[in-house]
Amino acid sequence: MAAVRGVVTCVRVSAAFYSTRSAGRTPLSQKWTVLQQNARRFSTNQSGRAYIWPATAVGVACGLTAGAALYLTRRKNPVGAKSAPTFEHDPTPGGFRTNLPEFSLQEVSRHKTKADRIWITYKSGVYDITEFVESHPGGSSKILLAAGGAVEPFWAMYAVHKDNPEVFELLEPLRIGNISRKDLIEMQRTKKSDPNDPFASEPGRHPALAPSSSKPFNAEPPAELLVDNYITPNELFFVRNHLPVPQVDMKNYVLTVGGEGLKKHSFTLDELKEKFKHRKMVATIQCAGNRRSNMMEVKKIKGLSWGIAAISNAEWTGVFLSDILAHLGLADPEKRGELKHVQFEGLDLDPEKAPYGGSIPIEKALDPSGDVLLAWDMNGEPLSRDHGFPLRVIAPGIIGARQVKWLSKVWVSPDESPSHWQQNDYKGFAPQVDWDTVDFKKSPAIQEYPVQSAICEPKDGAVWDNEEEVTVRGYAYSGGGREIIRVDVSADGGKTWHPTELVAKPNQGYNRTWAWTLWEADVPLPKDSKGKEVELCAKAVDSAYNTQPESFKPYWNLRGVVANAWHRVHIKVEDDEDN
Amino acid sequence: MAAVRGVVTCVRVSAAFYSTRSAGRTPLSQKWTVLQQNARRFSTNQSGRAYIWPATAVGVACGLTAGAALYLTRRKNPVGAKSAPTFEHDPTPGGFRTNLPEFSLQEVSRHKTKADRIWITYKSGVYDITEFVESHPGGSSKILLAAGGAVEPFWAMYAVHKDNPEVFELLEPLRIGNISRKDLIEMQRTKKSDPNDPFASEPGRHPALAPSSSKPFNAEPPAELLVDNYITPNELFFVRNHLPVPQVDMKNYVLTVGGEGLKKHSFTLDELKEKFKHRKMVATIQCAGNRRSNMMEVKKIKGLSWGIAAISNAEWTGVFLSDILAHLGLADPEKRGELKHVQFEGLDLDPEKAPYGGSIPIEKALDPSGDVLLAWDMNGEPLSRDHGFPLRVIAPGIIGARQVKWLSKVWVSPDESPSHWQQNDYKGFAPQVDWDTVDFKKSPAIQEYPVQSAICEPKDGAVWDNEEEVTVRGYAYSGGGREIIRVDVSADGGKTWHPTELVAKPNQGYNRTWAWTLWEADVPLPKDSKGKEVELCAKAVDSAYNTQPESFKPYWNLRGVVANAWHRVHIKVEDDEDN
Repeated sequence: MAAVRGVVTCVRVSAAFYSTRSAGRTPLSQKWTVLQQNARRFSTNQSGRAYIWPATAVGVACGLTAGAALYLTRRKNPVGAKSAPTFEHDPTPGGFRTNLPEFSLQEVSRHKTKADRIWITYKSGVYDITEFVESHPGGSSKILLAAGGAVEPFWAMYAVHKDNPEVFELLEPLRIGNISRKDLIEMQRTKKSDPNDPFASEPGRHPALAPSSSKPFNAEPPAELLVDNYITPNELFFVRNHLPVPQVDMKNYVLTVGGEGLKKHSFTLDELKEKFKHRKMVATIQCAGNRRSNMMEVKKIKGLSWGIAAISNAEWTGVFLSDILAHLGLADPEKRGELKHVQFEGLDLDPEKAPYGGSIPIEKALDPSGDVLLAWDMNGEPLSRDHGFPLRVIAPGIIGARQVKWLSKVWVSPDESPSHWQQNDYKGFAPQVDWDTVDFKKSPAIQEYPVQSAICEPKDGAVWDNEEEVTVRGYAYSGGGREIIRVDVSADGGKTWHPTELVAKPNQGYNRTWAWTLWEADVPLPKDSKGKEVELCAKAVDSAYNTQPESFKPYWNLRGVVANAWHRVHIKVEDDEDN
Repeated sequence: MAAVRGVVTCVRVSAAFYSTRSAGRTPLSQKWTVLQQNARRFSTNQSGRAYIWPATAVGVACGLTAGAALYLTRRKNPVGAKSAPTFEHDPTPGGFRTNLPEFSLQEVSRHKTKADRIWITYKSGVYDITEFVESHPGGSSKILLAAGGAVEPFWAMYAVHKDNPEVFELLEPLRIGNISRKDLIEMQRTKKSDPNDPFASEPGRHPALAPSSSKPFNAEPPAELLVDNYITPNELFFVRNHLPVPQVDMKNYVLTVGGEGLKKHSFTLDELKEKFKHRKMVATIQCAGNRRSNMMEVKKIKGLSWGIAAISNAEWTGVFLSDILAHLGLADPEKRGELKHVQFEGLDLDPEKAPYGGSIPIEKALDPSGDVLLAWDMNGEPLSRDHGFPLRVIAPGIIGARQVKWLSKVWVSPDESPSHWQQNDYKGFAPQVDWDTVDFKKSPAIQEYPVQSAICEPKDGAVWDNEEEVTVRGYAYSGGGREIIRVDVSADGGKTWHPTELVAKPNQGYNRTWAWTLWEADVPLPKDSKGKEVELCAKAVDSAYNTQPESFKPYWNLRGVVANAWHRVHIKVEDDEDN
């Protein structure tokens, strides 16, 4: 496989898994096991309390600029800082070396490119990895994700690094210094938060999550990490918060369930777990705004500038909403009367103390094949605070905005949720509709997402060193349980197309395919591509033969939602003279 | 409303309904009544007997020349015989060749085996296919059915042969002679149809139905009549027959229902009607090949050249398949075991006496919200012979090919229907796949259709006499019960878009919207359009925000199915000087 240059590649989360490619593919069942193990191994329990990195996964962060800075200042017990720095000489990997110079984290953060030299930190140590990058076994692009900052958060995702002496044999000779004592102490110091900041008690986040906004926190993982994992590790799962993350006191937590003309019930989490059958399901969640930045290339849009990774895939455990509604006496569809929607409320409050809310059609909620869960567990761990601790809705095949987190209330009603996000957001319009003419009442609230796909590797702007073919990898997904049946890739802007291999896909049944498909292809490059720019495109087809639009212009909409035109990535095919 | 000129407008089935437009719109409920009355008025009982066209409804139309002319000539003249044989040299395939010997039909009939040499006839030609038999792409057994006689009746059942130059390239080098003049004259003289012709007892059809092929009969109504009626009158409902229409003797008719590991049941039609609850439902049926002619503009496709009207909408009466399957003990989804498909067989037989067949996923069949009917009634009349008398499947939201007519057997199985049409037809492929590389096993059988729309008025090539705006009308429909939420129309080839009014649409519920939507808009013409050609485009969006592709090229496929790119119509805006 040709290497991408000029773009980061690095440790592969499941290096063992994907490196089998040349020696024949790992069967999917085996991949799953590995992936699930990875997901579990790297999941940490953030349930309802301040986030503490497990000591084994600790790593000093820095450099990943925004993410890391935010992360560091928020930590009580910062990643990688020893419990009591003594600054005595410590010869173990990453230990403080009294015989080496000190560098501030700010100084480290300036070393991100070959020209500036590429530095990373591990525990107290600073390393110059410039000459090592190209020979990194996991590829150069992945190790470069840590450039200018801490390597631990990335190692945490790749089991191969854990306590591996071979890793330290490669790393330690590259040691050039220590993080400055001042920064190590600062990292250690308890941060005093502003008591008036509604975001003061936000949980910690993985520095690889690139925020579109920090208050509320909205962030997506690097695309090339995303597509390395069929099951997205919890720390890398994209985060879409509309409001501050609530702090839930489990002593008082109850879920209220009822509806117009129905008896009201309350359940503690334990009662829910006891009363109803537990269900497990793998489902992808995608923000309706995923790929908005691609749509913005046509015309400006208000809203978070999501890249291509506001989408992730996990295994959820919970109870069927249909079982709970049956408990309310709603099992018989003919007894529903005027009840048409199931509304959800979260514990996250807007400045006027109104909760976040959303609703789904009652048909989806009542259908056992609709697989709507009230879930408390994500990849074998209790939900983290960012993902809705203690309970959230998983309404598979439907946009993320309806899958309400920090769930406090389920209410069956003739009407949709009255919340801002159901009524005046998350709706699509024709391209001619602008903010002067829009009438949100005229368009239905989005439920199912249309067919989507994106190229995760190579990245836009990559330089490619093989003039024969390019290895392209990505994801594809469709709403409503529709399976992905095909992904085509082009290396000439859409003139000719090549098949891809669907390397990891679910087998969940007719119109119950809730999880995404990962795909890969070695695509021949056009003749005489050397030294030229090549436009790669991807387009997926779902089981109802729905397709992605060729371009965004005819489907631009003022909220920048359901952005699913062909994904286009431009790479430069390296000329020999470039070397 | 501006008038269309230069295009056929002619008889409007429900002219009364649509002409109300200028005086304010008719409420939908009223439209429905009118439409249903119309549907009844123009329905005739064709059940199992020769078709008689009621005098009151005969609107033989001025401009419906092509269809009617074709219809008339085909009824009188047997396949292949020229209207007046002149025996001049004719170099076209099957033409009379003055330079070749003549053979009597009796002589031809003696050549049926390899030992005797294998001869067939096509039109006036006699061919020795002995050496070709083994390499026949459809297998040797099929071509041998024609040994010693005419090949046309068999070709008629396999659309791939129709007007296909590749077929003639293979056939013509095998030419050895002509049918004798005496026999050709005799064939011409006998106006009565050949008793061996499997199509000898076809029912009569409305002359407005323009056939894509006459044996088997495949035809669509004029688009402008189609969109005049929310409920398509029975006579205008498009016809898609794969084989000769069977003659069903109701004395012996039974439906067999069973499956692997299940008890077998037989029901007469009366028993079905007595045992199970009757259901009524409005549902659109669309041929998976609808709009193939539009896709063919990119690159040639073998198959019937459907226009935009291989789609129609009717109210069906029957019983739920889910009720019948519950009777078999299949109501509990967890008891299904390995049973995954419900296969259907028709009474229409191919030349080897194998029935037409298709299957649908068991999830669709068992789900009461899937609304699959076994129907005996169409718009208040028993099914006509062309539409499946006495019983057919209505699997709403799914392509027509699975909605088996003349239903004789329902069989629950771990496997899809083994029929040719399920296994080796009605599948989509990527544009790079051609007849040399296609592997039908690699693509799933189409079930749900993607979102579709077309402009029914004005027609391509129309001259428009209003320079300000153009009145555009059409239909939109999506598979899987997904509702049409919007149709946009452009009068500048897709640069700018205008909203349409959804003038007739169903209200059938979430993912149970089985009937189409009719739409209309007065669209401003671009400035200075006078005397110029204008490109109109339409595109629909369904409730899952699926969209139609901008062009056919990236979605061209070798079977020409799911052709749902934007519909484009070119009109000429009249110049004053044209008058």
